[in-house]
Amino acid sequence: MNYPNGAKKVLVKQGMTETADAFSNRGMTLEEDINTTNKYYLDLDKAIVHKKPTPVQIVKVNYPKRSAAVITEAYFKQASTTDYNGVYRGRHIDFEAKETKNKTLFPLANIHDHQIKHMESVIKHGGICFLIIRFAAYNETFFMPAEKLFSYWNDKQKGGKKSIPYNVIKESGYSIPFQYQARIDYLAIIDKLYF
Amino acid sequence: MNYPNGAKKVLVKQGMTETADAFSNRGMTLEEDINTTNKYYLDLDKAIVHKKPTPVQIVKVNYPKRSAAVITEAYFKQASTTDYNGVYRGRHIDFEAKETKNKTLFPLANIHDHQIKHMESVIKHGGICFLIIRFAAYNETFFMPAEKLFSYWNDKQKGGKKSIPYNVIKESGYSIPFQYQARIDYLAIIDKLYF
Repeated sequence: MNYPNGAKKVLVKQGMTETADAFSNRGMTLEEDINTTNKYYLDLDKAIVHKKPTPVQIVKVNYPKRSAAVITEAYFKQASTTDYNGVYRGRHIDFEAKETKNKTLFPLANIHDHQIKHMESVIKHGGICFLIIRFAAYNETFFMPAEKLFSYWNDKQKGGKKSIPYNVIKESGYSIPFQYQARIDYLAIIDKLYF
Repeated sequence: MNYPNGAKKVLVKQGMTETADAFSNRGMTLEEDINTTNKYYLDLDKAIVHKKPTPVQIVKVNYPKRSAAVITEAYFKQASTTDYNGVYRGRHIDFEAKETKNKTLFPLANIHDHQIKHMESVIKHGGICFLIIRFAAYNETFFMPAEKLFSYWNDKQKGGKKSIPYNVIKESGYSIPFQYQARIDYLAIIDKLYF
């Protein structure tokens, strides 16, 4: 795919955060790692997990004769759910992936209220829901059960801190080791926590 | 949303079928009915089911100052999975919705090989997978467990019939009654078949 004029960077902005300045321009890396991992899981028939397409509001489409329809005006939309979901060992799994270049905290501005509501619902209905958080500065990636996120979110909504400290994530989350094939082997953590 | 020049029709083509001629121009109706049903389920906190965004290949994006990024060149992509998934009573559910105006058969040309592979995988991993098929001419909507689709698909791949007769779907599928709020109350069928 050809992304002229820095389009790639904007895709990262739209797909992963509203406050792009706070985030690494290595932002695609986590997404690429997860996509690679999901493909590996799929090839091994271990789990069926896909990233949802980027939601786009289509306004104008042209129909050149003898060729495919061209979308000529469209806008990025905010996602109403999380980015990834699928099925593993009979369970519905659902997660969001976020990368920050902040060294001391994970800013909650990158998560939307309706995404939190979605996560709460998924858990209530028996799904497994979590965040994959990468601290780019340390190249460390953590598995954070969504349940552990909610109290920080509620604090923020009541005017409290707008972030989760790095140390809290390091202590209450689970480090995901970087591997060659299953680059972000989050199923290994799910095996331990939920089965 | 504004769809000039028949864009709506093309969205239907892309999202629902490659052979639009064979299909009703009431094509959006089934999708709208399902979206309404899913919203009703969500409001009642009965199940979490969403339609995946239409996959789009983004080629060019413009960044006007002081306003949102505009996608100025993009193309519709073929979906690699089914259109809908979610979680219900602890189970992963996954389905595709198709509408035909054909009165005697459901053409299999509307389903892609990778979608069939996806459906087989979902079932293998413990998910509930099915098709919602509407015969527009009769305004009848059927729940068809994906398992019942596979033998017809395999026949087609071996050079057999390229469709499933209406009567087979009527007999081996399950009629979904049209209701006021849960317009396409497919969970009622799931309750009977899987729980």
